[in-house]
Amino acid sequence: MSVNEKIILTNRPEGMPTAEDFSIQEEQLPVPQAGEVLVRTLYVSVDPYMRGRMSSAKSYAAPYELGDVIKGGSIGQIMESTDPEWKQGDIVAGLWGWQRYAAAATDTLRRVDPELAPVSTALGVLGMTGLTAYFGLLDIGQPKEGETVVVSGAAGAVGMIVGQIAKIKGARVVGIAGSDEKNNYLVQELGFDAALNYRTESNLQSALEQACPNGVDVYFDNVGGEISDAVLSLLNKNARIPICGQIALYNLQQPDNGPRMQTQLLKNTALMKGFLVGDYAAEFGKALPELAGWLQSGQLQHAEHIVDGFEHTVEAFLGLFTGDNLGKQLVKVSEITE
Amino acid sequence: MSVNEKIILTNRPEGMPTAEDFSIQEEQLPVPQAGEVLVRTLYVSVDPYMRGRMSSAKSYAAPYELGDVIKGGSIGQIMESTDPEWKQGDIVAGLWGWQRYAAAATDTLRRVDPELAPVSTALGVLGMTGLTAYFGLLDIGQPKEGETVVVSGAAGAVGMIVGQIAKIKGARVVGIAGSDEKNNYLVQELGFDAALNYRTESNLQSALEQACPNGVDVYFDNVGGEISDAVLSLLNKNARIPICGQIALYNLQQPDNGPRMQTQLLKNTALMKGFLVGDYAAEFGKALPELAGWLQSGQLQHAEHIVDGFEHTVEAFLGLFTGDNLGKQLVKVSEITE
Repeated sequence: MSVNEKIILTNRPEGMPTAEDFSIQEEQLPVPQAGEVLVRTLYVSVDPYMRGRMSSAKSYAAPYELGDVIKGGSIGQIMESTDPEWKQGDIVAGLWGWQRYAAAATDTLRRVDPELAPVSTALGVLGMTGLTAYFGLLDIGQPKEGETVVVSGAAGAVGMIVGQIAKIKGARVVGIAGSDEKNNYLVQELGFDAALNYRTESNLQSALEQACPNGVDVYFDNVGGEISDAVLSLLNKNARIPICGQIALYNLQQPDNGPRMQTQLLKNTALMKGFLVGDYAAEFGKALPELAGWLQSGQLQHAEHIVDGFEHTVEAFLGLFTGDNLGKQLVKVSEITE
Repeated sequence: MSVNEKIILTNRPEGMPTAEDFSIQEEQLPVPQAGEVLVRTLYVSVDPYMRGRMSSAKSYAAPYELGDVIKGGSIGQIMESTDPEWKQGDIVAGLWGWQRYAAAATDTLRRVDPELAPVSTALGVLGMTGLTAYFGLLDIGQPKEGETVVVSGAAGAVGMIVGQIAKIKGARVVGIAGSDEKNNYLVQELGFDAALNYRTESNLQSALEQACPNGVDVYFDNVGGEISDAVLSLLNKNARIPICGQIALYNLQQPDNGPRMQTQLLKNTALMKGFLVGDYAAEFGKALPELAGWLQSGQLQHAEHIVDGFEHTVEAFLGLFTGDNLGKQLVKVSEITE
C-alpha cells in the first residue's frame, strides 16, 4: 500500500503499438500537497486518441513524453484529502491516467455521484465518450426526423451512443462495425435500423446503398479510410459529416491516400468538420443532465467492456485496434470501499 | 436580323472539351409570347461550372442535353416586349446562354442599371461571380482581421473578388495562380499580400509556408488537386475551407486520388463545406448593394477578359481550362444601342 505502480511510455510506436512500447514502473506512494487529494484508482480508460499522443507529431493533444505516465481519463476514490470540500471516500473523475494511485489537484477533478449510475459511466456515457457523441452528432451532424445517419466504428464507445441519440432524434440509423456479433447487438439491443459488417461485405458500397435507400444525410466518422470513401459516395444534398476519429489510420505507416472528397462535398453542398469534445467544455453542464436523463429513462443504454486488473491495461488498449471491444473499453483497477 | 444563331452541344466531352464538341446552329428569330421579351445579346458568360453540365453525370446542375443551346448567364437589350413593365431598350440579365437572340420570360430576368457600372459587371462582380465570392468567403470562410486567407484560382473571376473582399475584412491574403503576369496584377493592382505561381514554384508547400508564416485560417478553394493538398497541410486550428470549384478535376478521366484530408480537418477542428451561390438567392438583395458600394468606392476592382465576337465563344470557354483569362471571362456579342 505504500507503493504506486504506473504505466509509462518507453518507446514511440511506429505503426501498430506493442506491449514492448510500455513498462510498469514502481514508485513511492505520492503525498498530496495543499489543494490536492490522494486517489486510489477504480477504473482507467483506454481510448483510440491515446495512440496519437504516443507519436511525437504535432496534433490536437500534446505528445506523451518518453518515461512519463500515460495520461487519460480515470475514476478513483479519495483516500486522503487536504481540502474539506473533498472528503475521504468521495468518488471522482480526473485525468491522472494509467496508475494505481495519484496525487491530483482538486481543480482538475469532477465529482461522480454513485447513486446516479454505476461510477464507471463517468468514463463512458456520462463522461467524455457520451459528450463526444452528443456534441459531434447534435452540433455538427444535426440529424432531423426521418433523415439517415450512418455511423462508422458503430460498436465502439462513441459510435454506439451516436446511433442511439440519432434514434432518439427520429433518424434512420445504419451502423458499420467489424463483426456480426457486434452488429446483432446494435440492431437487436440498441435499435439500430441496420448494421453492416465491413469485414465480410464483399461490396460495402452496394450494401450501404441498400441500407440507405434515401441516401446519407449525416455521416458520423470514427474510422476514415475506405469505409468512409464508400459512405461519402452516397451523400445527400446538404449532408453533414462530423469527423470524430480516424482509427483506421492511426497505425498507418504510409500516407493515407484515396479519393479526394472535395468534389463530393461540392456536388452535395455538404459540410465536413473535425471536432474535439474539449472545445465544448462550456456546454458540458447542459449536456450531462440530458444524457443522464436518457440513461435513466432507458432510451440510452451503455455498454462497457471491462477488463479486470491494472496489469491488463496495455492489452486492453491494444485491443482497441483489433476490434475486440464492444462499447466503452475500461480497465477495473480496484473496488469501491465504504 | 431575322436569323438567330446559337451554340449547341453536339457531343459530350470526355476529358478536355474541344471545339468539335459544339456547333453553331441557325434558326428563325424567336417570337416572344405573352410574358416574354425578345432580347438581343450584348455579352455571354463562359464559366468553369459549365463543363460539369456537359457530362451526363448527376451533379448540382442538370446536364445539358445534346442538341440544346448551352445555357448560362447573359446580358441583353430588349428589342420587343409584350409587357409594359419591360421596355424596348432596357438592359437585362438572364440565363438564355450562348445565343444571339432569345425570347425570355420576364420572370427569369434581372434589370441591369447602366448608370451604376458597365453593364458587363452584371455577369461579373455585380452578378453570380461576385455573389459566389461574397457568400463563400463571408458565410463559410468568415475571415477575421489579421487572419490569413489563401485563394486558389486567384486570378480567375471569383478568386480575384474573394481576395479583395478578404482584404476589405483586414485579412492577410495569399493568392495562387498560374503565371507571374497574373500574380503581379494580384499584388500590384489588387493589393494581395503575396501570390504564388503554382506552375513555376519547385516546392509549392514550402513557398506557401513562407507566404503564410502564421498558417492558414481560410482556404477558398477553386481548383482542388495537388494545389489544395499543399494548402491543407498548413491549416490552423478552426480553419474554414469553402469549396467553390475544382477546376483541376473537371477534365480528369481517372479518379482524383490523393491524400485523404480528414485527418487534417480532425487535427485542426477545421470545417470544409461545398456551396452553391444559388442556395443564397434569398440574400442576393442584401449582398449586391454592398458589392456595388465597394466597387464605387474603389475598394473592389473588377477585371474582365472580354473576347469580341460571338463566334469566339467556344474558344473563350476552352481558354478557362488553359489559364488564359485574367478575371471574368466574357464574350461581347453586340453593342448597346440608344
